[in-house]
Amino acid sequence: MAKVHITDVVLRDGHQSLIATRMRTEDMLPICGKLDKAGYWSLEVWGGATFDACVRFLREDPWERLARLREALPNTRLQMLLRGQNLLGYRHYSDDVVRAFVNRAAANGMDVFRIFDALNDVRNLRTAIEATKAAGKHAQGTICYTTSPVHTLDAYVKLADELIAMGVDSIAIKDMAGLLTPKATGDLVKALKDRFSVPLFLHSHSTSGMAPMCQLKAVEEGCDHVDTVISSFSGGTSHPPTESLVASLHAAGYETGLDLKLLQEISHYFREVRKKYHQFESEYNDVDSQVLISQVPGGMMSNLANQLKEQGALDRIQDVFNEIPRVRADLGFPPLVTPTSQIVGTQAVLNVLTGKRYESITNEVKRYLQGWYGQAPAPVNEKVRTQAIGSEEVIDCRPADLLGDELDKLREQIGSLALNEEDVLTYAMFPEVAKTYLQERADGTLQPEPLLPKNDTRADGVVPTAFKV
Amino acid sequence: MAKVHITDVVLRDGHQSLIATRMRTEDMLPICGKLDKAGYWSLEVWGGATFDACVRFLREDPWERLARLREALPNTRLQMLLRGQNLLGYRHYSDDVVRAFVNRAAANGMDVFRIFDALNDVRNLRTAIEATKAAGKHAQGTICYTTSPVHTLDAYVKLADELIAMGVDSIAIKDMAGLLTPKATGDLVKALKDRFSVPLFLHSHSTSGMAPMCQLKAVEEGCDHVDTVISSFSGGTSHPPTESLVASLHAAGYETGLDLKLLQEISHYFREVRKKYHQFESEYNDVDSQVLISQVPGGMMSNLANQLKEQGALDRIQDVFNEIPRVRADLGFPPLVTPTSQIVGTQAVLNVLTGKRYESITNEVKRYLQGWYGQAPAPVNEKVRTQAIGSEEVIDCRPADLLGDELDKLREQIGSLALNEEDVLTYAMFPEVAKTYLQERADGTLQPEPLLPKNDTRADGVVPTAFKV
Ligand SMILES: [Co+2]
Ligand SMILES: [Co+2]
Repeated sequence: MAKVHITDVVLRDGHQSLIATRMRTEDMLPICGKLDKAGYWSLEVWGGATFDACVRFLREDPWERLARLREALPNTRLQMLLRGQNLLGYRHYSDDVVRAFVNRAAANGMDVFRIFDALNDVRNLRTAIEATKAAGKHAQGTICYTTSPVHTLDAYVKLADELIAMGVDSIAIKDMAGLLTPKATGDLVKALKDRFSVPLFLHSHSTSGMAPMCQLKAVEEGCDHVDTVISSFSGGTSHPPTESLVASLHAAGYETGLDLKLLQEISHYFREVRKKYHQFESEYNDVDSQVLISQVPGGMMSNLANQLKEQGALDRIQDVFNEIPRVRADLGFPPLVTPTSQIVGTQAVLNVLTGKRYESITNEVKRYLQGWYGQAPAPVNEKVRTQAIGSEEVIDCRPADLLGDELDKLREQIGSLALNEEDVLTYAMFPEVAKTYLQERADGTLQPEPLLPKNDTRADGVVPTAFKV
Repeated sequence: MAKVHITDVVLRDGHQSLIATRMRTEDMLPICGKLDKAGYWSLEVWGGATFDACVRFLREDPWERLARLREALPNTRLQMLLRGQNLLGYRHYSDDVVRAFVNRAAANGMDVFRIFDALNDVRNLRTAIEATKAAGKHAQGTICYTTSPVHTLDAYVKLADELIAMGVDSIAIKDMAGLLTPKATGDLVKALKDRFSVPLFLHSHSTSGMAPMCQLKAVEEGCDHVDTVISSFSGGTSHPPTESLVASLHAAGYETGLDLKLLQEISHYFREVRKKYHQFESEYNDVDSQVLISQVPGGMMSNLANQLKEQGALDRIQDVFNEIPRVRADLGFPPLVTPTSQIVGTQAVLNVLTGKRYESITNEVKRYLQGWYGQAPAPVNEKVRTQAIGSEEVIDCRPADLLGDELDKLREQIGSLALNEEDVLTYAMFPEVAKTYLQERADGTLQPEPLLPKNDTRADGVVPTAFKV
């Protein structure tokens, strides 16, 4: 029987997608016994925005979370999401910081490192992949999926080729915006499995409602691993539910090794936990049809709508909306994901509000056009580049090649507030926020942001009847 | 390009599944212009529980709703769900009532009649199918899907054979509980399409989270028609979203004729409408994993939990739960749908609480075992039957064969409160409720049940970030 391996992402991407990354470690630990027994290939528990949220909002030590999860999940692989040379921060770090970060994550119990770059520039993945392998851990190379004239099947195969040449243990298809259609998924998986023997992972979001179908097609075409989330944290901008895929695959003769009864108990647990964080729920979390129509994530549009509202220019939203694909083309079709979605969106707003395209240009667009984020997927618009940076230098090397070692300097800056190397790395990620955090920790004044009391006003006992025909 | 036809069920099953069938005609009419232009093959707008809800709760004339929808949707087929010989009520009606009902529905604008029987006893469909064809309308025969030792592929093919022999224009697979797996769907569709040339419709609920995958498999195996619901009324005990399937199919080279931009506008409209009915929302509407584990719908379990609670016996729920499949087997494996889910569930509770199986037997089980609901899918347990009815007569004919004409009697009973034949039929469905309704209409005192004011207490402006990786 063919085996399909499941990674549940409830402890990372699930709550990141649905409750703004706010789940606390205290709500993770009580269910770890069951999670550890359920039969997952791995649990995604760390990285992405969780590190930032721990320090900034929850006032928790993310390293301590990792260590405690490791202890509570002795039999299950722990997995994290790492932004390549950006690690878990928002800039390019020097190689010594990258190596130290990966090394400390591995030492604290991380098994699987999913490593991606927003531009799919593999040079931004190299150091992290090397460090993962040096630590004897599983290095997973990532394809950020998007659509554009240059994002062809061949281009993705070439990208996978490069990742494999760098020695990755597996490849992940990462569809952060829910753009993958079942057909595109099947074609992409087939192209990759025809050529490569490393395990293939699919990570897709339910944003557009197509993800359950994508997962099925992926498995049919030979995808070995699928990311899902326990049903009480599934759907919308999150992921398809674990239980439904497991039952579907079992019925089709695949083995997942997962126990549906245990999954049900896990789901009930998280259903209760989720209530605690009701203040972070989005009012709308049904299908985002904007993605289906324009390939622009609705979340990005609502952020822009807020920007326009503040400027009293909400009536220009459709213009901004038409402008986004043009800016994206000018920038060489970057996938729209942090930070590129912000870079493209903000410039599109400027282009519309000033009345003249690129009359005003953001610093981020300038840095992007100078090559400081890496290589764009397609050539950028040279006219726009000249307008933005004149004759200033453009780099075409790996951005981190221009960065000297910085770990010693960071260690010196934070001084005795850092009790260990992990603290120094926390400081490296978010200097200001982390410094405040470390100071308050030293002072014994750490306070998590408050949670609002439950005030569910739905009428008790009024539920739809079971009369369903 | 292969064509796949879409039926949107938002005006019937969508709101029946999610807001207890409470959507009012006044909230349907404003969007009909767009619905009529979108390109649906049909819109399911009537039947099921809507007729009952109109009279009982909304104090609307269901016939007037139909006439107004017909007028507002001149270019789209209107479709209804009809419970065979039960019509839209809860008992077997005489043939003259069935004929009159179908005739009046057709005259008021109904195009497509989806006709089913809870036991899949085709004799209970015959009169309704004949009446539909006599009215020159589309008669659709229905397979109620369930799982049991006797519900084999062969059995479903045989059922379809019988339906086609009765002259149906098409066949629907109706999965009211979300039991279909993608594999089972593909196999069933293939078996039917290999043998029959009539159009095949798939109606599946998202209860277990497998339905989107089932729809894709169905189309791949040649299913011509799929029921979906506009995304703002999708998911949970409702159906997969229209937009996601349409986009998925377009990407795979199928044509649906639907315009995603219009669908988006329609979805936004219904998103606002849904808020008005917040009091009828279920607190939990994520994946029902109970169905996946036991094939017993969670909605049925929660009804039974309430019954047990009232009797201070909630601790026996697991026993009841284990008893349900045994009672179902004793009764010859009926699909669990109204009314059989209630019949089986209540008897299971009695069997557990009395401490001795079938020491007490409900009247409904007795009538069932006497044959008054039609023929069970498999032979019933004869010991249980003897215990229930002793040597009382068991009928094996079509139940309605034993009913004399009743329309004249009904017309006489309701008298001048009925202003037309439609009123008589309303009275036939729900004698007491309809009589009160017609009396209050005559008195000018009709009042719909009140809607609670909106009191959404979620904190404004707190939404998950767009940072999704
Ligand atoms: Co239904
Ligand atoms: Co993600």
